[in-house]
Amino acid sequence: MLKELLTPEIVQLIRERQWTDMRDALIIWPPAEVADLIQSIDEPARVLLLRFLPRQYSAEVFSELTPGLQDDLLRELSNHEVRGLLSDLSPDDRIALIEEMPAEVTRRLFGLLSPEDLRETRQMLGYPEESVGRVMTPNFVDIRAEMTVDEALLYIREHGGSSETINVVYVVDEVGILLDEIPLRRLILAQPGKTVGSIMDRSVVSLSGYSDQEEAVAMIKKYNYLALPVVDSTGVLLGIVTIDDLMDVAEAEVTEDFQKLGAVGAEPDDGPILSIREAAVSVLFRRRIGWLVLLVFANIPAGFGMSFFTDIIEATVALVFFLPVLIGSGGNAGSQSATLIVRALATGSIKLADARRMFTKELLVSLLLGLTMGAAIFCVASAKAGVTVAVVAALSMALIVLGSSMVGMLLPFILQKFGRDPATASAPLITSIADVGGVLVYFSIASRIIRFG
Amino acid sequence: MLKELLTPEIVQLIRERQWTDMRDALIIWPPAEVADLIQSIDEPARVLLLRFLPRQYSAEVFSELTPGLQDDLLRELSNHEVRGLLSDLSPDDRIALIEEMPAEVTRRLFGLLSPEDLRETRQMLGYPEESVGRVMTPNFVDIRAEMTVDEALLYIREHGGSSETINVVYVVDEVGILLDEIPLRRLILAQPGKTVGSIMDRSVVSLSGYSDQEEAVAMIKKYNYLALPVVDSTGVLLGIVTIDDLMDVAEAEVTEDFQKLGAVGAEPDDGPILSIREAAVSVLFRRRIGWLVLLVFANIPAGFGMSFFTDIIEATVALVFFLPVLIGSGGNAGSQSATLIVRALATGSIKLADARRMFTKELLVSLLLGLTMGAAIFCVASAKAGVTVAVVAALSMALIVLGSSMVGMLLPFILQKFGRDPATASAPLITSIADVGGVLVYFSIASRIIRFG
Repeated sequence: MLKELLTPEIVQLIRERQWTDMRDALIIWPPAEVADLIQSIDEPARVLLLRFLPRQYSAEVFSELTPGLQDDLLRELSNHEVRGLLSDLSPDDRIALIEEMPAEVTRRLFGLLSPEDLRETRQMLGYPEESVGRVMTPNFVDIRAEMTVDEALLYIREHGGSSETINVVYVVDEVGILLDEIPLRRLILAQPGKTVGSIMDRSVVSLSGYSDQEEAVAMIKKYNYLALPVVDSTGVLLGIVTIDDLMDVAEAEVTEDFQKLGAVGAEPDDGPILSIREAAVSVLFRRRIGWLVLLVFANIPAGFGMSFFTDIIEATVALVFFLPVLIGSGGNAGSQSATLIVRALATGSIKLADARRMFTKELLVSLLLGLTMGAAIFCVASAKAGVTVAVVAALSMALIVLGSSMVGMLLPFILQKFGRDPATASAPLITSIADVGGVLVYFSIASRIIRFG
Repeated sequence: MLKELLTPEIVQLIRERQWTDMRDALIIWPPAEVADLIQSIDEPARVLLLRFLPRQYSAEVFSELTPGLQDDLLRELSNHEVRGLLSDLSPDDRIALIEEMPAEVTRRLFGLLSPEDLRETRQMLGYPEESVGRVMTPNFVDIRAEMTVDEALLYIREHGGSSETINVVYVVDEVGILLDEIPLRRLILAQPGKTVGSIMDRSVVSLSGYSDQEEAVAMIKKYNYLALPVVDSTGVLLGIVTIDDLMDVAEAEVTEDFQKLGAVGAEPDDGPILSIREAAVSVLFRRRIGWLVLLVFANIPAGFGMSFFTDIIEATVALVFFLPVLIGSGGNAGSQSATLIVRALATGSIKLADARRMFTKELLVSLLLGLTMGAAIFCVASAKAGVTVAVVAALSMALIVLGSSMVGMLLPFILQKFGRDPATASAPLITSIADVGGVLVYFSIASRIIRFG
């Protein structure tokens, strides 16, 4: 909204070189709004705007820009400016920046980091991609159990300035082993003279730096935490992951699930999530063609299968008219079950152990669906093609809907069981299976009933 | 994990009536874990377990249980117990509970609320469903600009106990109009003698109680906030919404998008999101049958269309063999585009204004996809059914993939344009459109080429 309101004014101020006015007009807005505005203005003005913002603030704006624009701006800024920018980014945002940049930019960035920043960054990059270690920040406040509440608050005042959050602080022992986490709220509300040890409840949940980020997301959701501590194998506190970084992870994860369900493949190098606005045509093509061609070959047996039924098709061409609706309905019912199960597995509202329970339920539901759909197609087909074809279509519909639903329900469980992502059971995959099964069921029933009817 | 570890021990303690030991063994765990454990134990033990936990803690555990189990437990608890439980629930959790319960339980609950709680609850229920008013809590800390930092901290110590969060506090004027929000962090780190007014930056973003919850979710994500203030039309601060409540909203919203894309309908009364584990067979049936039957009728024109081509089908039965793969591929390509666009619109990575840009890009991508797929089907078809049929199949494939992709890309934009949810452009809907279009394209091309070939 800032973009619409302010862009003309800001462009005017830049043209008139009124840097102070421009800065004052911008810095009252959240960095994300200013980042939006930067995306919308012309090239030379962008870098000027960034230059005249206060350092810490411009680093925050910078971390909100798209990777493509970050890349462009980095090329235009001097080494001195980039060094300032990098040191003002929080460690996790710095990692995110370095991971997104092309290799030659990364090399330049590494050259500009201060020795401490370099050590910190290298250490974080040592964890596998998608691991908690990649998004953790070493900027947290740790206090000792022997401190009084007042001493702890004083310590937080002195040392909390560079911390990612002080809404939660961490109690560690003399070698840095994590003993407990204490919400700032509890400290503020406690009697000042009490020791930190006396208000601990030792109910701390922690993660390893090698844990999957999805695990952290699940924990944050389950416990309604704002941050989670990360420890090494001996229990020493290494860093924390905060909810705002994890929300980005959660969103990317959901997008991945959506794309898998829609049979859009991942980048060959398991790269970042596709942003269709920025992605090149060639990238979009590569991500989509794999599954499409694979599904063509998955569908071939339907055609081959039909060639065994040439006689019956030639004898009763009307049968063919109902083929699209039969295999289509099978695909639709199967997509519904697969979607429901994939999403329920992703949110944890069902687990692998629920497979048997869901099987029984799906059997009942899809039997009802199949019978209703069979009745519907019977009405349409008997008016158009006579009772015999209508009976064939209705029976086939009931069986196809039942079968496809069961496949759509079982496949995600089976994929999960074998350690694969249940979302691979995409709607198009289920539809292709329904096509092949549908053709065989339909013409088999037709040849029985019409031949002996 | 607690469940696996502790269930036998807890069951044993309950059997031996060792209530104190049981309570001590449980209360060191987060309420969500204890809720999991309760779901797994037998009926009479559940209510006993809840009774012997400390009041505030048992309210937190209760709010983590599934609606079905909450209902069961409420029926078993005495009025006195339920009253205690209700008064210990936070207002937003109380609303969530009341909304989930059947009408007769709601009436009993209303009868048990204290006058203040009833007023608070009624007020919150006055906002439309899915509005911010429904999830806001009136428990926040408001301070005045004239206070010193130290006075403000003292005030927070005294009044913050019942607040939902004190990580952010709100500055209001003498009539309660919201002036600014101040993170507790900034207060803690500021010089004690300064006034609150001097550390304000007046960069506060607020919502109306009538705003859609999705708007709040988008703001929380964009600005990385932990809570958002809710004001009335005159700017008076009414309540706050916190990130943990909004994360539940965000998850429900994503689930709804998934289900829509899979053509699973909403409950007729626009009720809560379907939990397939708990939902009755009849509910699942009702949610699925609507779209399925609708899509049967959407598919009928494909059959009718084919009847115009009876001659060509009888003359060249081999044409029919490629029908499933052609319409299937169209559906697959269309599902891919629809999925990509729907998700990108939901995350805000593209907007309505990007429609033209995406149109050009999709045209290029789907042209490439169509040509590749056409080549693939030509190889298969020429080996099996001769060159003429292969040419027909390849041309049709290219056109069908192109057309379905464009429909899959455009439909979500069109729905958005007319104020509908883009996720209604479900994979099954696109597939049905692809079926009808595919049949017509294929047999039209076939009758031209084979007749004049």
